[in-house]
Amino acid sequence: MKQHKFKLLISYDGTHFGGWQAQPNATSIQEHIQKALQTILRTSPITVVGSGRTDAGVHAEGQVAHFTAPENIDLYQTLRSLNALLPHEIRILDLSPVCDDFHARFSALGKIYHYHLHLDPITNPFNRLYTTYYPYPLDLSLIEEAIPHFVGEHNFTSFANDAHLGSASKKPVRTLHRLEMVSVTGGIRLDFEGAGFLYKMVRNITGTLLDVGGGKIPPDAIPKILEAKDRRQAGHTAPPQGLFLMKVLYHESQLEGISKKESKCEMLASGLK
Amino acid sequence: MKQHKFKLLISYDGTHFGGWQAQPNATSIQEHIQKALQTILRTSPITVVGSGRTDAGVHAEGQVAHFTAPENIDLYQTLRSLNALLPHEIRILDLSPVCDDFHARFSALGKIYHYHLHLDPITNPFNRLYTTYYPYPLDLSLIEEAIPHFVGEHNFTSFANDAHLGSASKKPVRTLHRLEMVSVTGGIRLDFEGAGFLYKMVRNITGTLLDVGGGKIPPDAIPKILEAKDRRQAGHTAPPQGLFLMKVLYHESQLEGISKKESKCEMLASGLK
Repeated sequence: MKQHKFKLLISYDGTHFGGWQAQPNATSIQEHIQKALQTILRTSPITVVGSGRTDAGVHAEGQVAHFTAPENIDLYQTLRSLNALLPHEIRILDLSPVCDDFHARFSALGKIYHYHLHLDPITNPFNRLYTTYYPYPLDLSLIEEAIPHFVGEHNFTSFANDAHLGSASKKPVRTLHRLEMVSVTGGIRLDFEGAGFLYKMVRNITGTLLDVGGGKIPPDAIPKILEAKDRRQAGHTAPPQGLFLMKVLYHESQLEGISKKESKCEMLASGLK
Repeated sequence: MKQHKFKLLISYDGTHFGGWQAQPNATSIQEHIQKALQTILRTSPITVVGSGRTDAGVHAEGQVAHFTAPENIDLYQTLRSLNALLPHEIRILDLSPVCDDFHARFSALGKIYHYHLHLDPITNPFNRLYTTYYPYPLDLSLIEEAIPHFVGEHNFTSFANDAHLGSASKKPVRTLHRLEMVSVTGGIRLDFEGAGFLYKMVRNITGTLLDVGGGKIPPDAIPKILEAKDRRQAGHTAPPQGLFLMKVLYHESQLEGISKKESKCEMLASGLK
């Protein structure tokens, strides 16, 4: 049977999982989705390729993944069945056909992450799993001062925890398009938009900004920390539960191609519901 | 040592508890607070009296309770220690001295409850424990039509699940001051304000309103259901996780008495920090 590529838009509460990707001794979100798809499509093992990993405890409102399956699957029914089979912590928000050249990871132009910080002295029982509690003295104006030093193209080796993975040493220069501090009820949110992030980069920048706000690191030390290319120069790693992968960015044309006339995947589209 | 009364304002995520009050085989919120207070104050067993019970899985943003303790306790330090000892699902928002005639249950003039309903076809992983998922067809205009029939003074026996407790048969006439349907992201919220509620009354009215919206019960059948004084005539009991005890209402004078000149508990106040 003819095969086709499909894209998933996924939201998950990462609290009780070992992260996006399969880990020994902890179930992963990827595994859950793969298993559910195999049950529904009654096919041989399916690989669901995510836009990137998220660590244990990290959440997503807009993770993207792709998989290959017979082209005649019923999209609506498959989406419903996936949500019926998956644990309630994982929800498939959308399932759509994409062109064959779409790749959840390699086609991604960038990502948006949000980091939630609860600064009130008393935590809120209802967001304790979705925000990091930080009741210590914090000078937000120092954080505001430090933020611009991170924006733009930099070698982010000092903010990567992946000496063992080697990715930072291979491609440590990344561009952070936007880093903003937003006021929210009970605290603040840090919004990151960038073209690719190194391992734990968002959590390391967040931890460093907290150290800046707490007076441990002066705002104008950031350029020197970036220059040092040494993880030990930067601040602490903020915990996972405040972090949300909000959106993975792609070329609109790549996503819409399937429904456009004259597109290279028009032929495939004709067989789809 | 002289004893004094104190009032607690409490917020909790009821998901993992057997409810407010001690139950066999499940820990209660009341027990957790009593145990923490005993540890902090190093006293003999303390009884924490709540404004009323909440069932297993029901949440609170504004539960109120009182207890008696030596009058010289340090309020700020006790509040901090309570939150340090209690599980993160339970937070003490405020601890304050009250007059000796204050009673969390008997002094209460009324209560405000909110019931959250998620109506979107796909649940949100982050509010799954704090809202009831109801993806079935629902005509909100029928619910709007039924609502006024509940407001005012009625015998609510048909909406009480407590034949075995006997409270409905003793005082089944209650006044519902306000019942409103509010639009929220992904669904609706039902706001209840009343002078006392029977056991499971909010959940039974909510379940009945869902049955009205689903076309199972006509809106104008509500007066007859109330008249019948028969639980079997009304609709289903909505599940606990959508329900929040938002506020317990008291006479302001009773709460502020402690700090007012000439008040009957002025003498006691003088010894408090």
